[in-house]
Amino acid sequence: MSIEFLPGACTAAGGPYAGKVGANYPRNQWWVAATTDEVTRQPMRRWLLDLPVALYRTEAGAVVALDDRCPHRWAPLSSGWLEGDNIVCGYHGLRFSTEGRCVKAPTQANPPTRAKVHAYPVREIGPLVWIWTGDPALAADSEPHAVDWHVDPGWSLVGGAMEAEANYMLLKENVLDLTHFGYVHRTTFKILDFDRPPEVTVKGEQVEFHLEFPAVKLAPLFGALTGFGERPIARVNWGRSLSPALHLAGQDFTDPAPQAGQRRTAAFRVMHATTPISPTRMHYFWMAGWDVPLTQEQRDLMRDTTLLGFKEDKDMIEAIQATITQDPRGLNYPEIMVTSDQSAVQARRQLQIRLARDGELNQRN
Amino acid sequence: MSIEFLPGACTAAGGPYAGKVGANYPRNQWWVAATTDEVTRQPMRRWLLDLPVALYRTEAGAVVALDDRCPHRWAPLSSGWLEGDNIVCGYHGLRFSTEGRCVKAPTQANPPTRAKVHAYPVREIGPLVWIWTGDPALAADSEPHAVDWHVDPGWSLVGGAMEAEANYMLLKENVLDLTHFGYVHRTTFKILDFDRPPEVTVKGEQVEFHLEFPAVKLAPLFGALTGFGERPIARVNWGRSLSPALHLAGQDFTDPAPQAGQRRTAAFRVMHATTPISPTRMHYFWMAGWDVPLTQEQRDLMRDTTLLGFKEDKDMIEAIQATITQDPRGLNYPEIMVTSDQSAVQARRQLQIRLARDGELNQRN
Amino acid sequence: MSIEFLPGACTAAGGPYAGKVGANYPRNQWWVAATTDEVTRQPMRRWLLDLPVALYRTEAGAVVALDDRCPHRWAPLSSGWLEGDNIVCGYHGLRFSTEGRCVKAPTQANPPTRAKVHAYPVREIGPLVWIWTGDPALAADSEPHAVDWHVDPGWSLVGGAMEAEANYMLLKENVLDLTHFGYVHRTTFKILDFDRPPEVTVKGEQVEFHLEFPAVKLAPLFGALTGFGERPIARVNWGRSLSPALHLAGQDFTDPAPQAGQRRTAAFRVMHATTPISPTRMHYFWMAGWDVPLTQEQRDLMRDTTLLGFKEDKDMIEAIQATITQDPRGLNYPEIMVTSDQSAVQARRQLQIRLARDGELNQRN
Repeated sequence: MSIEFLPGACTAAGGPYAGKVGANYPRNQWWVAATTDEVTRQPMRRWLLDLPVALYRTEAGAVVALDDRCPHRWAPLSSGWLEGDNIVCGYHGLRFSTEGRCVKAPTQANPPTRAKVHAYPVREIGPLVWIWTGDPALAADSEPHAVDWHVDPGWSLVGGAMEAEANYMLLKENVLDLTHFGYVHRTTFKILDFDRPPEVTVKGEQVEFHLEFPAVKLAPLFGALTGFGERPIARVNWGRSLSPALHLAGQDFTDPAPQAGQRRTAAFRVMHATTPISPTRMHYFWMAGWDVPLTQEQRDLMRDTTLLGFKEDKDMIEAIQATITQDPRGLNYPEIMVTSDQSAVQARRQLQIRLARDGELNQRN
Repeated sequence: MSIEFLPGACTAAGGPYAGKVGANYPRNQWWVAATTDEVTRQPMRRWLLDLPVALYRTEAGAVVALDDRCPHRWAPLSSGWLEGDNIVCGYHGLRFSTEGRCVKAPTQANPPTRAKVHAYPVREIGPLVWIWTGDPALAADSEPHAVDWHVDPGWSLVGGAMEAEANYMLLKENVLDLTHFGYVHRTTFKILDFDRPPEVTVKGEQVEFHLEFPAVKLAPLFGALTGFGERPIARVNWGRSLSPALHLAGQDFTDPAPQAGQRRTAAFRVMHATTPISPTRMHYFWMAGWDVPLTQEQRDLMRDTTLLGFKEDKDMIEAIQATITQDPRGLNYPEIMVTSDQSAVQARRQLQIRLARDGELNQRN
Repeated sequence: MSIEFLPGACTAAGGPYAGKVGANYPRNQWWVAATTDEVTRQPMRRWLLDLPVALYRTEAGAVVALDDRCPHRWAPLSSGWLEGDNIVCGYHGLRFSTEGRCVKAPTQANPPTRAKVHAYPVREIGPLVWIWTGDPALAADSEPHAVDWHVDPGWSLVGGAMEAEANYMLLKENVLDLTHFGYVHRTTFKILDFDRPPEVTVKGEQVEFHLEFPAVKLAPLFGALTGFGERPIARVNWGRSLSPALHLAGQDFTDPAPQAGQRRTAAFRVMHATTPISPTRMHYFWMAGWDVPLTQEQRDLMRDTTLLGFKEDKDMIEAIQATITQDPRGLNYPEIMVTSDQSAVQARRQLQIRLARDGELNQRN
């Protein structure tokens, strides 16, 4: 493999904070590049893992991801336009195929043979477009995680995307330790009983937590959407870091004394997909779903409330990143663990293992 | 003393410009952190000498200054709230006492013993809150300067605070050489006779200048506020750098031919307190006072005029800082002294001595 | 020569990209500092080749260019005002002559002899003010290029100035390869037949290209302004990089079947003068002219269309600069040449020769 196009920034930073900040993103894995509706016949630029990427669709609808930097004069290919399935550089008109090969240079009979841009492996699965910025030869060895409820017509979904000025692992930590609900979201989500450490299990690279709650009155939004109202409902809460790119979470509700003709269970799921833009910025793609039919009004309410809460998380992790960046002590500051940190600490540890392993791969290739 | 919480930035920069720019602030001294009205039961964050500090008041009204960085996940404590005299971290709810000790971690029986944040020594004197960011063991050896006219009910006061994008010593230099009045403030303060070098004396670390003026018509604002109007009034002008943090200045007016039943003297005082945010930013706290009763309208006029003039100083020192920052010659540019620079040069020299001495202290501790 | 006032940034960066980005501007040559109407009796600051320069006119109208940094306390001289032909520093009132000599320090009898600022050699030729920031002893050995059509009353002129966030050589490359017209300007200038490489000749340091077009219908704006309308017109297009500072371009039109009593030829000229502000910013001064009388309305149309097109160039080179700056691969990215790159490549090569030669001069002096 030629790794000349890979920035030095992909080198894993060592030390105990390797999993917390810095260029701490393994490249040899799938990351979410965009939602499917973002990628169209109008090329777009997106910075992903430090790299400028041009994203567009072929006439047949396939997603193409090319290095967004023409090898002639370094113009963004995404500032050009499409000609069939080829992209035309908007500066001097060089054409590139979906494989990144230069197929036309307007002022000469044959395009320069060395003119090519990297074509990133991509996958489109349900509402998400995934990209592989590492060694292309390894891309076929794994597939992005397919999320069943993303494509289940029985589910009611909302979703969104935002950027945050923080290392992506600050958001991973956030979703791996829900004891922050009683503080960060105390007035929005109103779920105040995440007050003890969950059970944590590590399965290969995956880290999972699990917490059971006795039957209590649900938070008002949850009571309304499920139809359980104010009746006491038992629930199981869990979260699973499938990779540095993807976290899935859920709550499974059970009515211990179901009413005749009423539903006995309900399920709520959230996807948190984080993709680094740079060591201090990220894309954050989220989706939430209920296995319950919801009206448009209910979906709007769920989206608005979710956005309010996620804005609280964004503010918090951006404040942490800003502190790390501005405080001359930087990473040289104590970091104390408490019992509820198990899943976040395990996810960091798995990330460190992965970064170390990728360092070996890079050396070997 | 543990100095692990002190940034390397406190090291004195050497060379002839040590007193001019860079991280040139001695830590083992008191600096103004805030005005008393700024510190309330709502915690606030303030960057002081490169450090994020959370400021709040206890139920009894005492000022608390804690490192504004929770040792659990580095969230700003100031984004949380108070529970009695303890501050609650807004991320996961850890509580810290006024001494910075973690007194509660919500998900476990006992808080982690190593979890603590630095509690900065503070003093509240009159309208100012002072902080000590250096070796806490040395804080008790000195007290912030108490300014008598700040708390004298016979005085009419105005004051304010602003931030400036410049090293704090650029403002110190400004107030130590008033020959700039005839240029920077020629249309605002209208005092045009600071046209010769003052007498300068150095008393220990304090630098003082002194200049006498023969009886002349006062600047319009001063004539109006004192009631001397357009009559010729003699005056003595002086300024005193008590420390890198504090400069006091005054004008003492005497009517050589006092009218029957009219005041013969009047006194005007200004405090300039400068506190570094970083090497290129500062907080600037100022107060001005007359030993003359002033109407609200007169106080408003004095504040508005003072603010206009201080804005002129701010613009000037920010332009100098921007030039130093942007010009590749940086500090490597000639700096020529004139006779009126004595007090500024002496203040810089005292600062260098202090920084060198602190360097020794830091080595010894 | 004393080179103490020259920043280290003038050192030529080596390697194949020396002519593309970085501090790649030779100092020992004339650069455009301003248009003549910009320089008045009100001093102005302009950053030129990394240096702050104060520009103003004497009472007799001569242009003065001084280092915009008072050697007393580093205030911008341009924030002051003029007293006859001298500039008064707005901070403490030091006066400097047009030669940069301190002629008055208000608080002492004689100004400090060492107080001086560099007076840059300047030339005013037609609508342009030129500056020499290199070794002053070499300034007399060359003169800025005088452009005849700038001062020919038979010509109709429009012009303007803008700043761009890009290295100046990115604009030089742009105007040295007009095959971008069919892409960047396809909807504005509507000249679509720059579709083959021109002839390129190198004469000393000058690089020139030349391209002949058979008679075709002109672009609508050109047909209208020349009066040729939709008749087929032959044309010759050429461009000449006279120095890194100055590029002149032209189109010469000939009607192969002239109408009785109608003009047979027309000439169009464009000046592109680029002056670095810093390695990643530039001033861009342009003028365009026709040897044809134009109404005010036609001149307005020409200016508006030209500005639209130049905005397209600005957007493109700023996108390239931003990519170089943000992409961790920086300059370490392939750069493929095509046949139409000859003139840009030659101009870069001449620049490298010049920078290497200046490096020798700097060492020798």
